[in-house]
Amino acid sequence: MRISGEKFRTIWQKPNDPAIVQIIDQRRLPHEYVVQDLVTWQDGASAISDMLVRGAPLIGATAAWSLYLAAVEHKADTECRQHVLRAADVLGGTRPTAVNLIWALDRVRQVIARTAADTDLVTVLEREARAICLEDARISRGIGEHGLALIEGIASRKQGETVNILTHCNAGALATIEYGTATAPIYFAHEKGIDVHVWVDETRPRNQGSQLTAWELAENGVPHTLIVDNAGGHLMQHGMVDLCITGTDRTTRTGDVANKIGTYLKALAAHDNDVPFYVALPSTTIDWTISDGVRDIPIEERDPGEVSMIYGRSNSGLETVNTVASDTRISNFAFDVTPARLITGLITEHGICEASEDGLRGLFPDLAGTRR
Amino acid sequence: MRISGEKFRTIWQKPNDPAIVQIIDQRRLPHEYVVQDLVTWQDGASAISDMLVRGAPLIGATAAWSLYLAAVEHKADTECRQHVLRAADVLGGTRPTAVNLIWALDRVRQVIARTAADTDLVTVLEREARAICLEDARISRGIGEHGLALIEGIASRKQGETVNILTHCNAGALATIEYGTATAPIYFAHEKGIDVHVWVDETRPRNQGSQLTAWELAENGVPHTLIVDNAGGHLMQHGMVDLCITGTDRTTRTGDVANKIGTYLKALAAHDNDVPFYVALPSTTIDWTISDGVRDIPIEERDPGEVSMIYGRSNSGLETVNTVASDTRISNFAFDVTPARLITGLITEHGICEASEDGLRGLFPDLAGTRR
Repeated sequence: MRISGEKFRTIWQKPNDPAIVQIIDQRRLPHEYVVQDLVTWQDGASAISDMLVRGAPLIGATAAWSLYLAAVEHKADTECRQHVLRAADVLGGTRPTAVNLIWALDRVRQVIARTAADTDLVTVLEREARAICLEDARISRGIGEHGLALIEGIASRKQGETVNILTHCNAGALATIEYGTATAPIYFAHEKGIDVHVWVDETRPRNQGSQLTAWELAENGVPHTLIVDNAGGHLMQHGMVDLCITGTDRTTRTGDVANKIGTYLKALAAHDNDVPFYVALPSTTIDWTISDGVRDIPIEERDPGEVSMIYGRSNSGLETVNTVASDTRISNFAFDVTPARLITGLITEHGICEASEDGLRGLFPDLAGTRR
Repeated sequence: MRISGEKFRTIWQKPNDPAIVQIIDQRRLPHEYVVQDLVTWQDGASAISDMLVRGAPLIGATAAWSLYLAAVEHKADTECRQHVLRAADVLGGTRPTAVNLIWALDRVRQVIARTAADTDLVTVLEREARAICLEDARISRGIGEHGLALIEGIASRKQGETVNILTHCNAGALATIEYGTATAPIYFAHEKGIDVHVWVDETRPRNQGSQLTAWELAENGVPHTLIVDNAGGHLMQHGMVDLCITGTDRTTRTGDVANKIGTYLKALAAHDNDVPFYVALPSTTIDWTISDGVRDIPIEERDPGEVSMIYGRSNSGLETVNTVASDTRISNFAFDVTPARLITGLITEHGICEASEDGLRGLFPDLAGTRR
């Protein structure tokens, strides 16, 4: 993963000053590349709640690093441990629906509980935050390797012709530590010299496709073309898409997938045109307690301003414009559910399986039956 | 049809000065309601090419009124007829793909050919432009009446509960003379006191839904909610849509429909959820020469700037912002084709029929077999 040719991750310790953590302010992409210092744990909390960082894995990692920052701030304090645990409670409320946030905080809490009272928490929490990042990067690499085989298969059938892959939203490096989930197979294929081209759905209302996915693909030299969300069906009707890969926010044990609103429409078009439709996911997004995604996954309704207010570059600088009459009622569902019957397969860190209970149990026999 | 409570059409002669024609500058809606005078035929040509007016029927009417303006300008001139015919040639090139433009110009040319040399062309062309508008309004009313029966049926099954109708793009009053095509049944139902609510697709990239459909529904008091194009599938999965109605730019004799990009995705979702999907059309959009829409209807690719540049109201006034990195490649297909198998029925000025060759031949026995 690269930015301007330099190797990067989405969160890191400042070179020569490891007591500061750095992130990219993703709200300002692609217009500005701004690295933001996180000096206090509150900086980390704001980065999550104000969406400087987003994407479940990166949110979890940012929370873990924020607890490290709390330990740094209070390291000379006898109540250091209490300060860190109080910070964890506050961080837990920054994005209430993010699964990885709660998971990362619980993990760090357990580490603290296991740590002897006289041990330096700074070192312990630094190690833990690093471990969380390394594990996430390993998961992305696993997804990348398994998905690569899929793309290699298509490339070989196409005898070297470009493999066209459509993706929706940003399940990219920017949502994780590196490589992403849906994008990992694409980066792996590109690094291996396979001729891939990505159709990037704009992804209204927040435009994560045009603002984040297009940006990170460009930084890594992966050929891509931006399209409006309306266009994918036409492209598939005309043989211009070989493969769809999206991410998922939550996966039922039966393989239904809740992902960014509009994913379902692309899956329908893929199904109607015999285009393989894959979903890439770390096993942490599987909710083993739910069997019917459409019925049982609650869909968040978000701020109407996400639909009406558009951020971009005008002649006078970066600005937000309102595209809608002020009294227009707006509804803004953030996710939809794609039933397993429309999904060709799930790409996980353990391999690829059918989108079904049997498929997931086969890959994750130890997790199946657990509550997540 | 009303604006601020006043009855309106989309093109009319200026009160007390019939030598001037007036239109609404639709590019500025919903932010500003600006009436534009057309004084010369060149004003009419610019209004079409610069898209102050859009929608096939309104483009045709504007062309006819522009020829009237040419006649007014040259009425004292012995070469008046030549001036008008030259204006017709130029007008023919303002939007090369608009079927109704060519149709309206040919119709006026034929009228001129039938008119004796010493007859006042101003009167003749004024009458013809008015006739074109009246006929279009009659077609919309026909579609409205036939579609009303559909909505009444749903309302009666729902026993007075709100009937939720989803539409895509603007096949509304603003695209025609009044009432529109897809919106005509909705206005008729609303005027009859049926409790209708419209889900308005934003319609990227040009936002005709948020900027035009939402505006005209609001002006006429029809309850509606704006959604992003990605949302319709989720709404249909959850029983929140009773009926979809869209327009069409071109309909094959077999009932395939070319309409604004993204229509196909909504038809797939309707089909997957047993939601009736109707297309409203004047018979003039039927292309009797084509049987396979996906194969045979060429799809126009338009300016990438339509995707990247967004117009709206900022703190400092009306502005355009660029939402995309400047070097991003963009593809912008304007239409897609919805196969007849996904369409529940076609609503025409002659009645409702199955989306099939038999269905269309049954309603239009005289047209079937003709070249349009």
